[in-house]
Amino acid sequence: MSSTEPTSDEDVYLVDTTSTARTPGVRDLVMTDRWNTPIERPNGGYVLAAMLRGTGDELGVPHDPLYAAISYLGPPSVGPATIEVEPVKQGRRVVTASTRLLQDGRLVAVMTSGFGPREDERTTELGSPPALPAPDQCLDPSDHGGPTGGLFDRVDHRFATVPGWSTGAPSGDPAHDLWQRLAGGRTIDAYALGFLVDSAPPPVMELGEMASMTVQLTVHFHRRPTPGWIATRLSTRHLVTGFHEEDCELWDESGRLVAQSRQLAILG
Amino acid sequence: MSSTEPTSDEDVYLVDTTSTARTPGVRDLVMTDRWNTPIERPNGGYVLAAMLRGTGDELGVPHDPLYAAISYLGPPSVGPATIEVEPVKQGRRVVTASTRLLQDGRLVAVMTSGFGPREDERTTELGSPPALPAPDQCLDPSDHGGPTGGLFDRVDHRFATVPGWSTGAPSGDPAHDLWQRLAGGRTIDAYALGFLVDSAPPPVMELGEMASMTVQLTVHFHRRPTPGWIATRLSTRHLVTGFHEEDCELWDESGRLVAQSRQLAILG
Repeated sequence: MSSTEPTSDEDVYLVDTTSTARTPGVRDLVMTDRWNTPIERPNGGYVLAAMLRGTGDELGVPHDPLYAAISYLGPPSVGPATIEVEPVKQGRRVVTASTRLLQDGRLVAVMTSGFGPREDERTTELGSPPALPAPDQCLDPSDHGGPTGGLFDRVDHRFATVPGWSTGAPSGDPAHDLWQRLAGGRTIDAYALGFLVDSAPPPVMELGEMASMTVQLTVHFHRRPTPGWIATRLSTRHLVTGFHEEDCELWDESGRLVAQSRQLAILG
Repeated sequence: MSSTEPTSDEDVYLVDTTSTARTPGVRDLVMTDRWNTPIERPNGGYVLAAMLRGTGDELGVPHDPLYAAISYLGPPSVGPATIEVEPVKQGRRVVTASTRLLQDGRLVAVMTSGFGPREDERTTELGSPPALPAPDQCLDPSDHGGPTGGLFDRVDHRFATVPGWSTGAPSGDPAHDLWQRLAGGRTIDAYALGFLVDSAPPPVMELGEMASMTVQLTVHFHRRPTPGWIATRLSTRHLVTGFHEEDCELWDESGRLVAQSRQLAILG
């Protein structure tokens, strides 16, 4: 579906998340089928990464995003899309923008994001990364009958143990840790963190709920990761009348938190 | 500052969060000094509650909010304000709106919110409410030299123990639980939950950081509380180069989670 046929994992990520300027504030994007979920729709994290990159390119600020808050309004489709970026506020510490994704005149998602420098050195970390065996000691689901194609060719997953839901025996505890990286170890930039918070199987599957759709997702971006795998902590603690939160933490191999997110999702 | 002088706690909350329709999509609000923080600015949770009520009134949907994601762009002031509400998507399960708050032509905050019914009964709660002594066995900070006036006349706080920051001895652990309610026990509606997630002293004060400004705040609304106090759990786990998250859970006296939030804030 892309006019540029990528030849490597490196290219695929860049080509598929890059939009081109049409007029000031309006950008053209082609969403490919290379990030499709099992229901044959582009993954929501891919949508977020493409909208974020389009916003960063449009704003032209030399900073990574600080946060993004996205609302998903309807299912995205493979094919052309329009990204509209409106600068909302040029603050001293945060530049804020409002971004919309449209397909065939239909609003697919709206996002507010903030970009800016981090000038303060104060850092206090009271959390800790997931306790996972080394990636090469973990299970590659594609070796064990896991899904392939689309999204599953774009991200590498490594599980410490076989998830209960994958064997038809959900554990009842919707929490799991796993390793992730972009396919082939491609460099992870800030935009890709927006993808990686929504690229793994949802933990609510451990409650036997196999379909969950994201309504709203907020990501905090803390730093770019060191090269390597991303230790990913996913959990759902509160399922209330059909809606549930899903928390995600991404930690790099040097043990630093690189991003965290929370989403509100609805059972399908 | 209000044209209507309220005569009770009941009135204050309703008057101060209610805006009046000017033209379709545009509403007039008067922000009073009754919700001021110690820096003499209207509290961010009050701003959120007023924007949410304005959005709900404008949309005219018979449902409570499901979520609200607000970005604070500049300091709010006591005085007149304009709320602009744009319906973004009328979905089958979620009605989404984009809302802006302006003062003197200056953009103060932008918010995306979703409203809708909860038709699914499935509920699984894996968390638990804070373990707090009964409210009447807890400390009322106003009896112990705590601040009064403004915000502190609008919300009742009860602490299990004297916070370290209040005695000049921050504990080093930015987490605390407390009871809260609207002043005098006024009924808590869904909009007020948007206030209560941002109405208590920030836990980062236990790191000796006495000034923290919210950049972005996302709230999930689960249910209206039963009458009584709200057990409030606040924590900051990750302070990264001057920015930190703050998580909040609100539990009613019957032990049910009524709302949860996460904000990204910047040290002052």
